[in-house]
Amino acid sequence: MGILAAEPEFREEVTSAAVFTSNAFAAAPVVVSQRETQLSKMCAVIANSGSANACTGAEGLVVARAMQAACGEVLGVEPDHVGVASTGLIGLLPPTDRIRNGIAMAGRNLTRDGGSSFLSSIMTTDRFPKACALEVETVDGVVRLGGCAKGAGMIAPAMATMLCFVTTDAVVSHGVLRSLLRRVVGKTFNCVSVDGQMSTNDCVFLLAGGASRVFLSPAGAAQLGAALRCLLLRLALMMVADGEGATKVVRLRVRGAANDEDARTVARAVADSSLVKTAMYGCDPNWGRILSAAGAALPRKSLPRVYLEIGGVRVAQEARAVMLTPQAESTLKEVMARSEVDILLHLGNGRSHEKVYFSDLGHEYVAVNSEYST
Amino acid sequence: MGILAAEPEFREEVTSAAVFTSNAFAAAPVVVSQRETQLSKMCAVIANSGSANACTGAEGLVVARAMQAACGEVLGVEPDHVGVASTGLIGLLPPTDRIRNGIAMAGRNLTRDGGSSFLSSIMTTDRFPKACALEVETVDGVVRLGGCAKGAGMIAPAMATMLCFVTTDAVVSHGVLRSLLRRVVGKTFNCVSVDGQMSTNDCVFLLAGGASRVFLSPAGAAQLGAALRCLLLRLALMMVADGEGATKVVRLRVRGAANDEDARTVARAVADSSLVKTAMYGCDPNWGRILSAAGAALPRKSLPRVYLEIGGVRVAQEARAVMLTPQAESTLKEVMARSEVDILLHLGNGRSHEKVYFSDLGHEYVAVNSEYST
Repeated sequence: MGILAAEPEFREEVTSAAVFTSNAFAAAPVVVSQRETQLSKMCAVIANSGSANACTGAEGLVVARAMQAACGEVLGVEPDHVGVASTGLIGLLPPTDRIRNGIAMAGRNLTRDGGSSFLSSIMTTDRFPKACALEVETVDGVVRLGGCAKGAGMIAPAMATMLCFVTTDAVVSHGVLRSLLRRVVGKTFNCVSVDGQMSTNDCVFLLAGGASRVFLSPAGAAQLGAALRCLLLRLALMMVADGEGATKVVRLRVRGAANDEDARTVARAVADSSLVKTAMYGCDPNWGRILSAAGAALPRKSLPRVYLEIGGVRVAQEARAVMLTPQAESTLKEVMARSEVDILLHLGNGRSHEKVYFSDLGHEYVAVNSEYST
Repeated sequence: MGILAAEPEFREEVTSAAVFTSNAFAAAPVVVSQRETQLSKMCAVIANSGSANACTGAEGLVVARAMQAACGEVLGVEPDHVGVASTGLIGLLPPTDRIRNGIAMAGRNLTRDGGSSFLSSIMTTDRFPKACALEVETVDGVVRLGGCAKGAGMIAPAMATMLCFVTTDAVVSHGVLRSLLRRVVGKTFNCVSVDGQMSTNDCVFLLAGGASRVFLSPAGAAQLGAALRCLLLRLALMMVADGEGATKVVRLRVRGAANDEDARTVARAVADSSLVKTAMYGCDPNWGRILSAAGAALPRKSLPRVYLEIGGVRVAQEARAVMLTPQAESTLKEVMARSEVDILLHLGNGRSHEKVYFSDLGHEYVAVNSEYST
């Protein structure tokens, strides 16, 4: 159980924004945050781990609302100025008594430097905490940006992703925050894939307290946006690296696609392919599986000019193998053994491109996920 | 290397049909079979394992044509009356000398009861051979139907699937064979999923030699179609059970979908979910993952009446957990430990339905696939 809140003197002025999962079975906290909360004026977020409060029916909504109300009471703010987030097992209702006590305790222990204890309160299968802070020198003055995230499995593109909480001391309108957040999430969290799953509980909250007293102009807001992109990409990559049982992060760039839809479809198909992921785990530069996954995603297309590079080594050209020099062979071997691998897949069919980060699939993934609820 | 051929006296009369993968990087043998072969008059098929002859460029086409020509020569038939199929590693060109010798030897050793040696010649990572034969009492007389298949990994819906060879001694026109085959493949092979992959080499060949001298009427052809469906479903389920490293087969029925597209999308999303597959491997009735995968496939839909049954035990109702009786708990535990598990997911949203068979994902899958080419 953890509370993230603006300092008391700024709680009235806070602006905020959030994005949520589009899963049809969105969790109760997502429903309450999305429908019953003033998303432009959240001065705090209450989060719990252990129970996801998803697929819990009307009782789940009651509990999520109770969390919101209890947090509002502790902080002395309106309940609908508090966002709610949960993570954990689907179908489990958070125990009301423990939640209430936890909120009271978290409220008593709020401190300026309590970020790491907030972060540790929301971790589940995470192997390490994920946090990052930046100072941004904008044209309007220096502002700060800090974020933390929770997530390892159940992460995929095309979603508003896992739990992530970002704060800034800049003064920015809700409208600007909202458009920055949507754009940046699309370019960061939505470009990572651990196992092609979109969770019922994913959300990203962004709160701007205004403590810096720096009012951002459009140019300053754009600079904040650029920094936000760096921050969220950093957190997204930490999540990929922490993919349940992951041993490496693969950065796949798809280029030369006929259109954006093709680029996205191919990037996702390769990133989600169990055969590609297991090859990566085995340090096997099995380019045939990459082409096969891409080809399956674009049925009946003709792509004679396709080429593929792994770690800068061209392994396929015009849809067939390249004869590798002994030096290229040894580079490839060395590259595949690294914890970060770069793959470039050029479809030779246009100018659209897409990037995706994904983790490999090994024994540890199976071990973690076959024993989760039992 | 194996040759499947009609008996010499029937080679002129054979009718045939075939379906192929829609992968953009279709293998050379698929291209040659699909574009340069008389699909209505194939009296033989030549197949090799070890090299897939996919992503092998113009040289690959030369080799596939050479296989076709050599087989035609051995049998004394036109090359374009011979289908070609390959399976094995992508990017590898079959060695011409060995192919030529293999074809000569296979041609010399053709026998009436050589089916099992043909089958063993095309196996790769298969743990057991997959074959089935049926007698069909049609209104027109008794005909026979026999088939064999090769495949374990790289199997997914929406494709013309792995290697499969079916023969019948009925007398049927090419048009009837073609429409029967397409319809039946859509209901059988396209309803199985091992790892969501569609291979570059998948194909199904159907040859009708006519040895029974039974001319099928439309009613008889419909009966042959029904038997063909049983046969291909049997072979498809053998492939799921042999899914690389699979320990169980899960039969998922999706019902109550608003339309066919929704039913198919949900069935596929659940069947391809690594989290669902690992839960199945761990004998964990983790219904939350099933709903989450379904919900991710239908973003923003409202499905308040959804329910889920595992092995006949209702575990979720109206998108939330059902309190299980001790008896239901023990039934569920027993059901999850079986090698075949039935899941019913009712979306409560319409009348469309879909069925899919899939395998679990365990350590053996990772072991097999991370060490394939190295």
